[in-house]
Amino acid sequence: MSLEKALTDLRRALGPHNVITDPADLLCYSYDATADVPTQRPDVVVTPESTAHVVQVVKIARQYRLPIYPRGSGTNLSGGTIPLRGGIVLATVKMNRILEIDPANLTATVQPGVIIQDLNNAVAPYGLLYPPDPGTVATATMGGSVAECSGGLRGLKYGVTRHYVMGLEVVLASGEVIRCGGKTVKNVTGYDLVRLFTGSEGTLGIITEITVRLIPAPQARETMLAGFARLADAGNTVTEIIQRKVIPATLEIMDRVTVEVVENYAHIGLPTDVAALLLIEVDGIPEVVKYEAETVREIIKKNNGWVKTAENEAARENLLAARRAALPALAQRKPTTILEDATVPRSKITEMLLALEEIGKKYDLLIGTFGHAGDGNLHPTILADARDEDEMRRVRAAVEEIFRVALSLGGTLSGEHGIGMAKMRFLPWEMGASGVNVLRQIKKALDPENILNPGKMVDLAQEEEQK
Amino acid sequence: MSLEKALTDLRRALGPHNVITDPADLLCYSYDATADVPTQRPDVVVTPESTAHVVQVVKIARQYRLPIYPRGSGTNLSGGTIPLRGGIVLATVKMNRILEIDPANLTATVQPGVIIQDLNNAVAPYGLLYPPDPGTVATATMGGSVAECSGGLRGLKYGVTRHYVMGLEVVLASGEVIRCGGKTVKNVTGYDLVRLFTGSEGTLGIITEITVRLIPAPQARETMLAGFARLADAGNTVTEIIQRKVIPATLEIMDRVTVEVVENYAHIGLPTDVAALLLIEVDGIPEVVKYEAETVREIIKKNNGWVKTAENEAARENLLAARRAALPALAQRKPTTILEDATVPRSKITEMLLALEEIGKKYDLLIGTFGHAGDGNLHPTILADARDEDEMRRVRAAVEEIFRVALSLGGTLSGEHGIGMAKMRFLPWEMGASGVNVLRQIKKALDPENILNPGKMVDLAQEEEQK
Repeated sequence: MSLEKALTDLRRALGPHNVITDPADLLCYSYDATADVPTQRPDVVVTPESTAHVVQVVKIARQYRLPIYPRGSGTNLSGGTIPLRGGIVLATVKMNRILEIDPANLTATVQPGVIIQDLNNAVAPYGLLYPPDPGTVATATMGGSVAECSGGLRGLKYGVTRHYVMGLEVVLASGEVIRCGGKTVKNVTGYDLVRLFTGSEGTLGIITEITVRLIPAPQARETMLAGFARLADAGNTVTEIIQRKVIPATLEIMDRVTVEVVENYAHIGLPTDVAALLLIEVDGIPEVVKYEAETVREIIKKNNGWVKTAENEAARENLLAARRAALPALAQRKPTTILEDATVPRSKITEMLLALEEIGKKYDLLIGTFGHAGDGNLHPTILADARDEDEMRRVRAAVEEIFRVALSLGGTLSGEHGIGMAKMRFLPWEMGASGVNVLRQIKKALDPENILNPGKMVDLAQEEEQK
Repeated sequence: MSLEKALTDLRRALGPHNVITDPADLLCYSYDATADVPTQRPDVVVTPESTAHVVQVVKIARQYRLPIYPRGSGTNLSGGTIPLRGGIVLATVKMNRILEIDPANLTATVQPGVIIQDLNNAVAPYGLLYPPDPGTVATATMGGSVAECSGGLRGLKYGVTRHYVMGLEVVLASGEVIRCGGKTVKNVTGYDLVRLFTGSEGTLGIITEITVRLIPAPQARETMLAGFARLADAGNTVTEIIQRKVIPATLEIMDRVTVEVVENYAHIGLPTDVAALLLIEVDGIPEVVKYEAETVREIIKKNNGWVKTAENEAARENLLAARRAALPALAQRKPTTILEDATVPRSKITEMLLALEEIGKKYDLLIGTFGHAGDGNLHPTILADARDEDEMRRVRAAVEEIFRVALSLGGTLSGEHGIGMAKMRFLPWEMGASGVNVLRQIKKALDPENILNPGKMVDLAQEEEQK
């Protein structure tokens, strides 16, 4: 059997301890954090310890025509790491060294398996910060986060992953190793391969080393919680803060459903008689923080809201915990949590929030909405039960309508979760047939045999079947 | 003749007033701002007024197998706009409308022919700023600037063009029109086509609409001039400023040669008894500016420098004028100005400056170095005479050595000027054969007939000839 031969070759190349075939172990790699997508057990999981190992895996995969599914911690939310067609899961767990922290150039270089929070803990003593912070910072890997171009809570002020990746080492589908970018702030040598691989969801190459830009950590911050009796007042507050030229580090919203569920779950004393809560944090040097916090409070009051400022670090942690509890709290309310990330220009936040309420009513679904209001990246979260077929039909119809509304407001299918398997069929709605075709041509150019994370983003196999 | 037929079709599609064939006019499009590269007259220059016009030009070009050379103001410094193989120059001069300024979303949408400075003048009344500012802001177009991914004086603190482009409309080599990105801060739908086209030097598509991110304009600034008797002291000052977590908006250097030439040219009272001058501007809210300026002055003194702070706007303009005079002053010293942009990690600035002095001596050349010290992007400028063949041989050898040194210090061939024709042959030094091959595959995927700016970045024709 050719699979057996492939396993023998893999064991020889990587050592038997880096080749996992136990069915119970394989099961753990058959899914990720995404609901309502197929699951599939891989044939084998490999845990390379070096770039040379990754090259070996690619060569063996090509020889035996096995697909490779690169995987960090599997926290992604678009089915990006599910080994849809079996084959090899390449887990980066053992490539987890921080290779360098360079305070003079404000950079760090890491292997893909480093956990985001571990990087931040390591650079903190230098007074530095790696800003991208998806909700899963404590578990997600740098490799996965770069491959998915993660966003997170600081996107508005600090940007997302693509704004911090400076250099990459990538193993191509051919088995060749390339380096692109580096430690220079400016680099226009060749096409922007750094950004092409960032967010390519493991479909164009396997990232084996990452150099990121760090920033001086802010010296001070102020964290506020604001409540509103009307959703529109919360939305207008968001818009007005930006119009007043205040760019908070965090500007998060939780709607009534989310607030109620979080309070019932975590009992942290959230007021449940509100249409929406805003969690706002401004940071920088103390004088700026003071000015910005005062401006924010003034805008909240003008928009009929109340505001509470965290007096100390414990109170701050309490407020942030409420926001972080949103997803787990919603998730335990019903068995199936469909978490979307349709995103709109921030001036359209109010319209989007009102539309989500309507969609919930129309399809008789419980939708809790929270998310990054400051950058227009909302997380409408549909609470359902996968065993209820009728409900799931309504869920899918509601998801489609959410996408249509977001696009009609000038938004995008995905702000930070990626396309993966979950949103492939909606791609033409945003990019048009010609745009999707460009993606396909790029995929074909870099992975002509379709061995890297096949079936994600653009599906070349589907196309071949249709011929 | 097929050219005559093509001209007839172009006149019919765009109107005769948009099709230029007068030989004297064509001559103006045979070169750009780059020295020591071939020049070539195009067969025709077209001035489309709309995206539909651009589509027509692409279709006619394909039909008659004519190359298309997109062109803004022709200020680029890598031969990127020279119509190397004749054919059509597509000048975006008539697509020069600012389509929208959206203060709520902090965005502006423009046609490619808009001059960068005109955009900034238009957004200033809203208290907003478009940060990228190549030296040629007053003449360069947004389209050219996006196609080349321009850098400029604010790169250190504010990043470069790729950090501000949010959405693009692009006419592909097929004549299809696609849109990618948009107004949302977060967008991970599909591969990062926005960044792929940004910096693609007109070789992958023709940019017909651009949405950029704006930022609140800084409220205050302080501008300082510092002088040093030793080059190393200037270099160490740059490194130390960053290490102290101060990120100036501008951190420019001029070496002794440049200072002398500028003073002889502009007579603005620059001290010529220095090894190097630094021009430093910090900006932000007043309290931050005060703190940062004091820190900067302290570091300068510690490194044996003197410092002068601009007392008012006129004094500030005077200091900035000295920096802006660097290139024109150097350029009038000898007939041929070879301006490079090899870039190193900022911690290697001192090493690079000393190496440039050595290279000047070794090849008996006059090299003035100025540039963006804060981001490691130096502009060693060789003053020569193209009629002196022996000198030009030494120039070329020196340029090669500059690249080798920059790369050995972990730098890049081009920080902000691009590859164009000027640096194509050096690409493998930085990217390796495999990296260059990735560029070639992408070019082939998006422009299989090689009609968009052929002969730049990667040369498919050369490859075909070699078969």
